[in-house]
Amino acid sequence: LLTGCGDGESSASDGAPNVQTNKQVRWRLASSFSRSLDTIYGAAEVLSERLKALTGGNFEILPYPGGELVPPLEVLGSVQNRTVEMGHSASYYFIGKNPALAFDCTVPFGLTARQYNAWVYSGGGMDLLRDLFADFNILNLPGGNTGTQMGGWFNVEVNALDDMNGLKMRIPGMGGSVMSEMGVNAQVLPSGEIYPSLERGAIDAAEWVGPYDDEKLGFHEVAQYYYYPGWWEPGPALTFYVNRDAYDSLPTQYQEALKTAAAEANVRMMAEYDHRNPAALDRLLDEGTTLRRFPDGVMERAQTVTTQLLEDNAAGNPQYRKIYEAYKDAREDAYRWFGTAEMGYADFAFPRVDASSSSA
Amino acid sequence: LLTGCGDGESSASDGAPNVQTNKQVRWRLASSFSRSLDTIYGAAEVLSERLKALTGGNFEILPYPGGELVPPLEVLGSVQNRTVEMGHSASYYFIGKNPALAFDCTVPFGLTARQYNAWVYSGGGMDLLRDLFADFNILNLPGGNTGTQMGGWFNVEVNALDDMNGLKMRIPGMGGSVMSEMGVNAQVLPSGEIYPSLERGAIDAAEWVGPYDDEKLGFHEVAQYYYYPGWWEPGPALTFYVNRDAYDSLPTQYQEALKTAAAEANVRMMAEYDHRNPAALDRLLDEGTTLRRFPDGVMERAQTVTTQLLEDNAAGNPQYRKIYEAYKDAREDAYRWFGTAEMGYADFAFPRVDASSSSA
Repeated sequence: LLTGCGDGESSASDGAPNVQTNKQVRWRLASSFSRSLDTIYGAAEVLSERLKALTGGNFEILPYPGGELVPPLEVLGSVQNRTVEMGHSASYYFIGKNPALAFDCTVPFGLTARQYNAWVYSGGGMDLLRDLFADFNILNLPGGNTGTQMGGWFNVEVNALDDMNGLKMRIPGMGGSVMSEMGVNAQVLPSGEIYPSLERGAIDAAEWVGPYDDEKLGFHEVAQYYYYPGWWEPGPALTFYVNRDAYDSLPTQYQEALKTAAAEANVRMMAEYDHRNPAALDRLLDEGTTLRRFPDGVMERAQTVTTQLLEDNAAGNPQYRKIYEAYKDAREDAYRWFGTAEMGYADFAFPRVDASSSSA
Repeated sequence: LLTGCGDGESSASDGAPNVQTNKQVRWRLASSFSRSLDTIYGAAEVLSERLKALTGGNFEILPYPGGELVPPLEVLGSVQNRTVEMGHSASYYFIGKNPALAFDCTVPFGLTARQYNAWVYSGGGMDLLRDLFADFNILNLPGGNTGTQMGGWFNVEVNALDDMNGLKMRIPGMGGSVMSEMGVNAQVLPSGEIYPSLERGAIDAAEWVGPYDDEKLGFHEVAQYYYYPGWWEPGPALTFYVNRDAYDSLPTQYQEALKTAAAEANVRMMAEYDHRNPAALDRLLDEGTTLRRFPDGVMERAQTVTTQLLEDNAAGNPQYRKIYEAYKDAREDAYRWFGTAEMGYADFAFPRVDASSSSA
């Protein structure tokens, strides 16, 4: 039953904003992710489900997996030109359009999940990113995080920086660029080709996400060593893209519902990964996987190369420079603070599962 | 303008659930916290502001600081008996009513902020805690986190477990119980008495929250050493309490709005602390504060004592036992997983600010 007509409890004279709470809206959301990446894809489902609940079923967002409406890597453009009203993606897929988009997602040696939230929700990051997305006629809303990813699957041991030289590794994006500078033969392969390539030795290593997602692709069957951390993805953030004109046409309450539902999807996606990864890691170790941490020497060199790459991108690009400087400041602040209480606690409390104690 | 009457776009025949979206509801929320703890108190303001936006101003929650409507430590009881419809508090204040309430907030060597979210949103923790709060006729919603707190302010150096013996320290709750077992003279003092007590040497040490909150109380003026981590509060969660009858009387959409607004307040409170703490820590260091990490020997003993205390509580209390066992499982899973990618990254990337490099 719809109420609100002649209802003594409500009136237009109480200063309430313009509301059209019974308007039927049905949108399509193009995700860049397949259903098999259920934790990431699931963030769009959580958004959809919460919005429906918040609007009595009147504002419906129908999520579609990557490739069903538009190709995964065309999600941003499809929202920009309003082929779909919304998208859900990882903005580093689109650094070809503007390298600054990387800061909306992650860069090597960037912010962790909590640090990213601090920057966007409280530290001024949101305003900077909103300006950036305005160029694409898009409103961006934080939409989940994977947490620090794993460094991937290796069939050779990496004991020092030299061991990276000549390694054939599946690693796309900026991580791949950094690896290349370190002598790695970085390759881009779609997910379905990683397993057979590892199996026949066409590549020596490959990175994907973390235990929960990696397990499903079976990499542990064709690679021995599971390295961590994925220093090129310390806290990849996913983002909901909203076409600005579509957004502007919404009743105010639906706009607000969209923002708050996105915040819930954001925190719940991280929770879902943190819940699912431990058991998956256990199963991998039971199957005989050997855990290894990247040597400091590898990470030190990678950090140096990364800094140079990020600086190079900034040259002659004032928009990138502005966001990069703010990001760097936020990172420096966050790292220093997290180096005390959080790190001092983790350092003591979390077990070190490594060379000496790994494998079944 | 209120619409929805004779609006061709909406009808009762489309299967939409029962909605009463124009119903005026005005609730009072009693916080346990003062306005000066603006980050914690602010979570109730965020909840209120978002709910208002989600309901076109029709569902208003008016937050009151601790002591204004009811004493801070009577918030749970006041929600239970519906003196107020809602509360915002730290459930470990109420372990006198039921020791299991500690797991809704934090226990020494418990879950960190992200790990807590994983447990409550995805790992079954919410159901267990809902059952517990049902005994108080309360619906509980996660409502923010401080992150790992600092270990507090000391006027003596703690280089080994023995140095804790006889120390007079302001530390309430379970942290105080553990400290007592370790030979500390643990005391409970209200916030206003901590500064003068440190100043005149009536106590040697005191813990409060973290840099942002501690700075306001000026502890750095009367104590030299700032210890971390606060192993007794690795991730204190705040909770919104909703009187169950009040909740049941809400239109469905308002119930859903309340849940989602709480999730937004949850993630944004953590972000706010993570944004505000770094600059505060810098200022403290500039003023001459010396940072120190608790020696492993202290933490090891504390962990042993904690385990015993938690087990003792479980004896003869099946409800506590059930939650405790689930909490332990979640913690073991989380610690193991966070010991790999997250820790492996933090370990490398975050600077160690300690004995050798502290003070201005």
